[in-house]
Amino acid sequence: MAKSFNYEGLFSKNSQDTPIRVVSHAKYDFAVAYPAPETLPLDGLTEALRIQLDTKGDQMARDMAYYPQVHGLLELREFVCDKLAADRGFRVKPEQVVITSGSSEANALLIQAITNPRDTVIVEEYVYAGTLAQLRKYGANVVGTPLDDEGIIPAALEDLIKKLTAQGEKPKYLYTIPEHQNPTGSTLPEARRRQILDVAHKYGMPVLEDDCYVDLRFEGKTQPAFRTLDDSGIVMHVASFSKIISPGLRLGYFTASDEVMRRAVSFRSGGGPSQFTMYAVDGFLRSHMQEHKDTFRPMLRQKRDAMVSSLERHFGGSGATWSKPQGGCYSWLTMPKGTNLTAIQQQCFDDGVGFIAGSNFAPNNNGDHCARLCFAFESPEKNREGIALLAKLFEKHGAMKAKAAARR
Amino acid sequence: MAKSFNYEGLFSKNSQDTPIRVVSHAKYDFAVAYPAPETLPLDGLTEALRIQLDTKGDQMARDMAYYPQVHGLLELREFVCDKLAADRGFRVKPEQVVITSGSSEANALLIQAITNPRDTVIVEEYVYAGTLAQLRKYGANVVGTPLDDEGIIPAALEDLIKKLTAQGEKPKYLYTIPEHQNPTGSTLPEARRRQILDVAHKYGMPVLEDDCYVDLRFEGKTQPAFRTLDDSGIVMHVASFSKIISPGLRLGYFTASDEVMRRAVSFRSGGGPSQFTMYAVDGFLRSHMQEHKDTFRPMLRQKRDAMVSSLERHFGGSGATWSKPQGGCYSWLTMPKGTNLTAIQQQCFDDGVGFIAGSNFAPNNNGDHCARLCFAFESPEKNREGIALLAKLFEKHGAMKAKAAARR
Repeated sequence: MAKSFNYEGLFSKNSQDTPIRVVSHAKYDFAVAYPAPETLPLDGLTEALRIQLDTKGDQMARDMAYYPQVHGLLELREFVCDKLAADRGFRVKPEQVVITSGSSEANALLIQAITNPRDTVIVEEYVYAGTLAQLRKYGANVVGTPLDDEGIIPAALEDLIKKLTAQGEKPKYLYTIPEHQNPTGSTLPEARRRQILDVAHKYGMPVLEDDCYVDLRFEGKTQPAFRTLDDSGIVMHVASFSKIISPGLRLGYFTASDEVMRRAVSFRSGGGPSQFTMYAVDGFLRSHMQEHKDTFRPMLRQKRDAMVSSLERHFGGSGATWSKPQGGCYSWLTMPKGTNLTAIQQQCFDDGVGFIAGSNFAPNNNGDHCARLCFAFESPEKNREGIALLAKLFEKHGAMKAKAAARR
Repeated sequence: MAKSFNYEGLFSKNSQDTPIRVVSHAKYDFAVAYPAPETLPLDGLTEALRIQLDTKGDQMARDMAYYPQVHGLLELREFVCDKLAADRGFRVKPEQVVITSGSSEANALLIQAITNPRDTVIVEEYVYAGTLAQLRKYGANVVGTPLDDEGIIPAALEDLIKKLTAQGEKPKYLYTIPEHQNPTGSTLPEARRRQILDVAHKYGMPVLEDDCYVDLRFEGKTQPAFRTLDDSGIVMHVASFSKIISPGLRLGYFTASDEVMRRAVSFRSGGGPSQFTMYAVDGFLRSHMQEHKDTFRPMLRQKRDAMVSSLERHFGGSGATWSKPQGGCYSWLTMPKGTNLTAIQQQCFDDGVGFIAGSNFAPNNNGDHCARLCFAFESPEKNREGIALLAKLFEKHGAMKAKAAARR
């Protein structure tokens, strides 16, 4: 091999030497953020693609050659409009919808459209680590607003805005997952959403609403989206097919007011998602979505029940609390303050139980005593076994006092 | 509807209010950059996906749930390595390959890794408009280096580097499509590539090689890639499945030295291409690529022949010249200096013939008398008819002198 070429001084200032993430799994994996592979409707997707090809092969061929629909397959955007009207109760036109490579691209495009370096952005006190990383990548100063069991506390949000504004750090916008929040599992009640919208208008602060878990509700009542309650354009609405079908499809979407949409799309590179995948998903959703939801949701509920009852059994009385979400994938475990789960996360993984310590989700650096536990991936039985083992590991590593054996 | 929320002052400084591109087609469409839809192997792709599912459904399900392979499906990266070794004669490992959303994402990631605003970047004097737009989007000062029928002239390139360096604008890197260049159709001979690599090393200037047309050669000898001639890391190699299978798949790939790769990947948003599409393409390529190439290439050649013979017949003797490419999709028409094809592009489109005036590809603003003509899309017959009509339209709009009717 020739002498290595030296790139020193040639890299761009905002490039990062990013280590390659290696994904590995513990025996009991509560660290992931996905449903179980065996629940994915791959046969249904492939069959749907076959049918699409048989019934509109010529149109598919043209789309695969031209990719003329820059915001994504028209039929899929029409489906999204119908779905938003039926499930979320607000109406948009297909030309107001952009299909993206997962909700992560949607968030990335919108964040880039409205973030300058050093802008202050408010998020939930505990926030999806992927979005936290994206916000920081584009230079945002990220501040968490306090949460309780029902999510963002509107009065605390307004106090925070006032405080930040007084410090010369007027917040630019709010990012929130209001339904089955990642990582806490909480759902924000309608009354709070209305109060938060009042605050948003008062301070001229748009709301970036990430509604990616809404399809995964298995009990209780879906709350109206921020976007349902307000069509002034102050709400940017993002959602995803990752959770209801499969993350590996990389398909999500957003809707926002016209100029926001055009500016967001200007950050796209790569020309949009695969037409091939969009045709498969469009066909599948139209024929199978309800049926798939009907099998998927009770399964998720069983898993949530298994995890929560096992938490009750093995963590009850220890001073720990945990959320009992009505949907989504996560329960949020809160140990007494002073407990350091960040310190033992790797040890627990090595001993067979994966979780993500709260510090990974905490822009205010207050998450060491918390953990996100994903119940959606493992079977009910493994949820029970894994939580039992987790309690033992917490005791072993000094994060929880040992209890009388009888309790188990 | 509520009063519209006003986003004034909230947009990021580098966001652009991008108009939505509406794609329309002239009767004779030489303006596109794609093969004909009816030549796309959609049945083969869907069949390949069915077989993948039948033979490795469990693995597919895991990949669709976890997406653990951050740089793209391992099997597809292994295929790329074998293909690069067989077709291009250089060896890389799967961990040195990143699968991207078309070659456009590959280019965007690499450009971002090594471009700061106001960096000077050298490109061919006429360069793919998409890359030109990408380079400018990330702030590059783009300068074209002179071309002749065989592409970049190495001595002229060195002169340009010296001139720019003397002006305090030392070029950061060179972007080039050396094989069946877009838009000119030329292929750079091996000897010139070696000379250009010498220049690149002398001035510490990496080469971003866009090899996206290499599979579309239908006559003559494929030239070794820059990357084949130099494994020091100075060459970043980008390629695509868009041209050999379908642009709508959005699948391409790149290989570069380790740190360049890691920094490029740090700009990704959206989590990589669809696993679903990668499985389909991997299955298809392994079973059908050679067969598909064997039918695809002769068809392209027929189309090239039809266009070039019609150019000879209708433009011969007018002072015009045109390239006769050995592959790819484009012939480059050069009218006498002073002709303004930019001015009549829309009129010709309205009258039935689409082409792209050279000004769209010209960082040095010297392309008004040129046009890119894509022969790959229309049938041989429509290539002949369309060029005949184009000659009449050039005469009608004053871009060419009328000839004796007998010549037609």
